[in-house]
Parts: sequence; structure tokens; C-alpha cells
Amino acid sequence: MSHDASDDGYSEGDLRNTGMDLRHDREWDYELERIVDEIEERDAEKVGLQFPEGLKRRGPAVADDLREVVDDDVTILLSGQPCYGACDLDTYLMRRTDVFVHFGHSPMKESDQIIYVPLFSNVDPFPILEDSLDELPDPDDDPAVGLVTTAQHMNRFGEMVEWLEERGYEVHTRKGDDRLTYEGQVLGCNYASADIDADQILYVGGGKFHPMGLAMEHQDKHVVIGDPVNNVVTIADPDQFLKERYATVHKAMDAEKWGVIFCTKIGQGRWEKAEEILENNENAYLITMDEVTPDRLLNFDMDAFVNTGCPRITTDDGPQFHKPMVTPGEYEIAMGNKPLDELEFDTFHGTW
Amino acid sequence: MSHDASDDGYSEGDLRNTGMDLRHDREWDYELERIVDEIEERDAEKVGLQFPEGLKRRGPAVADDLREVVDDDVTILLSGQPCYGACDLDTYLMRRTDVFVHFGHSPMKESDQIIYVPLFSNVDPFPILEDSLDELPDPDDDPAVGLVTTAQHMNRFGEMVEWLEERGYEVHTRKGDDRLTYEGQVLGCNYASADIDADQILYVGGGKFHPMGLAMEHQDKHVVIGDPVNNVVTIADPDQFLKERYATVHKAMDAEKWGVIFCTKIGQGRWEKAEEILENNENAYLITMDEVTPDRLLNFDMDAFVNTGCPRITTDDGPQFHKPMVTPGEYEIAMGNKPLDELEFDTFHGTW
Repeated sequence: MSHDASDDGYSEGDLRNTGMDLRHDREWDYELERIVDEIEERDAEKVGLQFPEGLKRRGPAVADDLREVVDDDVTILLSGQPCYGACDLDTYLMRRTDVFVHFGHSPMKESDQIIYVPLFSNVDPFPILEDSLDELPDPDDDPAVGLVTTAQHMNRFGEMVEWLEERGYEVHTRKGDDRLTYEGQVLGCNYASADIDADQILYVGGGKFHPMGLAMEHQDKHVVIGDPVNNVVTIADPDQFLKERYATVHKAMDAEKWGVIFCTKIGQGRWEKAEEILENNENAYLITMDEVTPDRLLNFDMDAFVNTGCPRITTDDGPQFHKPMVTPGEYEIAMGNKPLDELEFDTFHGTW
Repeated sequence: MSHDASDDGYSEGDLRNTGMDLRHDREWDYELERIVDEIEERDAEKVGLQFPEGLKRRGPAVADDLREVVDDDVTILLSGQPCYGACDLDTYLMRRTDVFVHFGHSPMKESDQIIYVPLFSNVDPFPILEDSLDELPDPDDDPAVGLVTTAQHMNRFGEMVEWLEERGYEVHTRKGDDRLTYEGQVLGCNYASADIDADQILYVGGGKFHPMGLAMEHQDKHVVIGDPVNNVVTIADPDQFLKERYATVHKAMDAEKWGVIFCTKIGQGRWEKAEEILENNENAYLITMDEVTPDRLLNFDMDAFVNTGCPRITTDDGPQFHKPMVTPGEYEIAMGNKPLDELEFDTFHGTW
């Protein structure tokens, strides 16, 4: 999986090809002073730092910078757990450190225990906005356009709205629901910010991971991808994605023994959903885990799995598992409780 | 890794080749009644079951048996976390279930929260004991022999001692330390039960995982392996194992940046050890994680790693990591604080 905000570079046409390298070097403002202030204020002895996968290699340099300025008795702990979003806090580290800093994602839920450091991109989005206009209708014909982006470009969101308005567009934005921090923000699992009254949506951000979810969730809308990281404008086409989903659901229709996965990550658990499935299917078995990986499921002799955790593991990594894996909505179709044409993206709401 | 008691079948000469299949089918006594009694007594609503890797596929059948006899409102949860020993409890599941059953390992520490179900082997050990005599000295020349085995053969330990005594041996046994449950028991990380006054040690059990650690720890002793599962008697030869360790330590001598791994699994943490290394090396960085895997460490740009967690990950899986990984003792050698000839097996003491 590679659905953290910092490195979601799919190459075109291959939804499962993830890129770990940032193509552009960035200036880093990781708010050293704010972290040091908290350490001093709390008289902290243990400081935990959690970075998403693509930024983990920066951890030691941040630790060096901190150690230079804080007292000698402060211990810095780097989280070695995988991290794919603000849904994926290292709660072990959080509970055992006096200051816990989560880098690269915006808050899914504010807490005194967590310092969120957003790490905004310093890529200039305006050249790609200019290019994107070719794929949007003339504002005189249809001025309504929705604008969405990821946490790392939120620092320029207001300017982007203005830029489009200056060119005659009526820009629709929305905060979405309480899983999202900012107006116009999308997550890999939540596109409520695109529930707006416009047929066109402009997504500004790197890679295809987010816009592909967006196009799945809003299949009636035209999704233009302005990618300032790879400097390319494309149209999100969820067709292959959808074909894979239909194929998987069809395979799962033959399943008798079902593994029902409950994810124990703080922001990825849907207990009611898991219990509901279990209560209504005597051939269903509840399996709890944090990382949902092909290796771990190989140990279970099931015909199919329904994953109540992160929907992107199901839709993006699904083909890597030894048995069909479906979302809770797809499960209802596979079981014959819902018609096939109700197949939709598995949006994840709420926090924890 | 495959160092749980139930499936440690190395093939000869390849220390990293793990086998997940039990070669012999076993009759299973997983103490259904005892579990049901606990569920009823505690009026449990949630029951967690944790199996080691090689037995996970049995979980659904155990869940079926339980569901047939307990109330409908009892939810059975199967742990999908990797599990390699009693050191490796699924604490998430344990803390969120009313009854938590850990199968296949003996207690590392008793707790009201945990029901341990040992799953003894029903393999007959006496034919292999008979064969093992060829590799032991005549009792008239040297009667002293140590006897050790794994948790799954403990049910026959007393009989095995008697059998050897009847044939003229003076059988030395020892409980070891508080990490071990039974007299004569070994763990992959602890061979204190072989600290006995005899030059010969007979290990009875499947595979080479345990006797190889035993031979590393007690290099002055002659270790005979009587393997009743694969029906073969061999002599444990730790030479290749040791060569690999020396090679790794030599590579690590060039390291500047060190990753110090602290394992967050309940029975695999050595905090003082990790902190001590960190305090004395300004180029050391503390990394916390539960599963210590090559994938996870790839994200860290270090020259070498010292693993304060499970020693068998270091010694057995070590070559799979992208950078040299050493035990805390080997780290002292690599840093020049100890001579090379003090290289020894990294025994793990204590519980939690």
C-alpha cells in the first residue's frame, strides 16, 4: 500500500504500481521550534516521531536536529511501524511517550496527545492549473467546478480557488465530513468534499491514488487530474478499477467460508459492520489484525475475505491476496443481498 | 521466522529454510471444555483465540466447536497477527476480550487474562530415543546426559527421563529461569535448562531450530538431536551458524549510523539494553516496532542494525535484511568494546 499523502505516485494505467520516491525535492519545514517548545513545556523524557512510509528515511535527521537543542536526558524514538495515514497512528508509541509527533498527515481527530506536523508541499500548483483549463469546459458554457486536493497542498488551496475564480469559474468547495480536516481535502477513503453541485471536479495533487478513488466514488462526474508533482494533466478513468471490482465480486459469489477482517488500527476499525456480517452468516469467521497483508491471510483457509478496514487495501492491493477480497458493500452483492449495479466505492466515515 | 514450538522444521544444512507443515497428523486435544467453562463462568461476550502460525488454519474449526455450545451472543475473534511464541501475545485482542486463549505455547508468565492451551504432541518419542543411544557414549564410560525438549513434548518428559535412567544414564535436568515453564524445557531464545553438569545433551523434538540455538549457547557440549517428527537422529553443528555471525559482525564493524531496534511485543522488549546502546553512541537511532522485517527496515537509511528484540530474527533471518543486523552482544564486538572471541548466543531472560 502507498496511500499516504506524501507518495502516492501510480504510473498511468497501473493502479497497483506504487512509487516511494518523491520526484521533486522539497524544502522542509517540519516545525522544529513547535516540537522543541512542547518538549520543554511538558518536561518530556520520551519523544516519539512517526513518519509516513515515504518520509521515514528523514527521521534520523529530524532526531539529530532535536537532540542538538533538547536536554541530554530526552530520548527520541522513531516509529518503525508502517504508516499510511492519520488513521494509522502508532498508538503504542503514542501511549508511551510524553510528546508524540505525527508527520505528513492532517489531524483526523485532534488530541492533546498528538502533535500533527503537516509538511506542506512547496511545488507551485499554478502552472498545472493553467494546463488543466484545457480539460475543463469554458466557464461561459459551464462555470461550475469543484476543487479538491490533498493535505500537502492545502496551504495553497485558497489561492487556487481565487485563481480559478479570476478566470471566470464558480468554484464549489466543501469540508466533507468529520474524517477530513480541511475544506476541499480528500483522503484515499473519503471524498465527501466532492459532494458538490458541479459536474466537473479538478483534483490538484500528485499521483493517481486519490483521484482514482474520487472517480470511483463520483462516477457521474468528470474528474480532471492536475498533477503538479509529475507535471501532467489527465482524466481519471475508473473503468479498469471497476472491472476488477466486478470480477472479484463475481469470484466471491461462490465462497462458502468467509473471513471477516476487523482492522485494529485506530482509525480503520468498523466494529458494527464486522459484527453485522458475522451475525448474519454462520460461515463467517472474524479475524483481527493491524496490517492486512497477503502473507497473514495465507494462514487462513477461507474462500473469500470481506475487509471492514481500509477500503484501499481491498480495491488496490486486492489482486495480491490468495482469495477474493471485497468491501462490505461488495460483500452484500456477492451474498445476493444487493443487485450488482449497486457496486460503489467503499467510503470510510468517522474517526475513532 | 518460524520459531514457534509447533513448526520448526529446518531442513538439514539450511538454517533459514522454515517448514510450515506438520509432517505428522496429530490428534488434537485443545481442551474445549476448559474454554467453555471459562466462557460461562465469566459470562463472556467476546472470546479471543490466538494460534501460532502453523496452527492458524485450525482456528475456524475451533471457533465452530465453540459456537455450537456457547450462547449465541458470544463473539469469537481469531487473531490474525503473526505469532511465534508465548513472548508474542496479541495484547490488543487480550485487552478487548473477556476470555483470551493462547494455543500451542506454555505460559511465559501466568495471568488471569490468559488461558494457555499447550497442544501436546502425540508423537511417540521412544523409538527415536532408542536410535539416539548410538550417538551417546556408553553409560558405563560417561553416564551423565542432559535431557531437554520443547513445550509440545513436555507431557512425556518424565517418562523419557525414566527410560534413559533404566538404561544406565544419570539424567541431568533443570528448570532454567523464569522465562521457562517446565523443567527440561527450551525456547528458541533460552537454553538455561541445559546449564547442567554433563558433556552430552539429548534434545528431543522436531526440527533444528531449537537444537541449533542450544548448540550455539553451549558450544562446549555435544548436542544430539532425536527428532521424533522427522524420525532422524543428528548431531547439532553450529559451525555454519557461527561463521555467518562472524561475517555479519565484521561487516557491522564499518557502520557509522546504527539503528537500534526496540521490539514492542510484550515478551520481546529489552528497554535498558536499547537505552544503554543509545546513550553511548551518538550515531545510534532508536526504532520501535512489533514485527521486525526486512521491508520495514528498508525505509531507514542506516549502516547497520542492532536488534534488542528476538535474537532468532537476528541470527536466523539476519541475512535477509539489507544491512548487517547484530545482537546486543555482537554490537559490543563490532564497536570494539569486546574481543571477537566473546561472540556468543544472545540468550533472552525474564518475562515482562
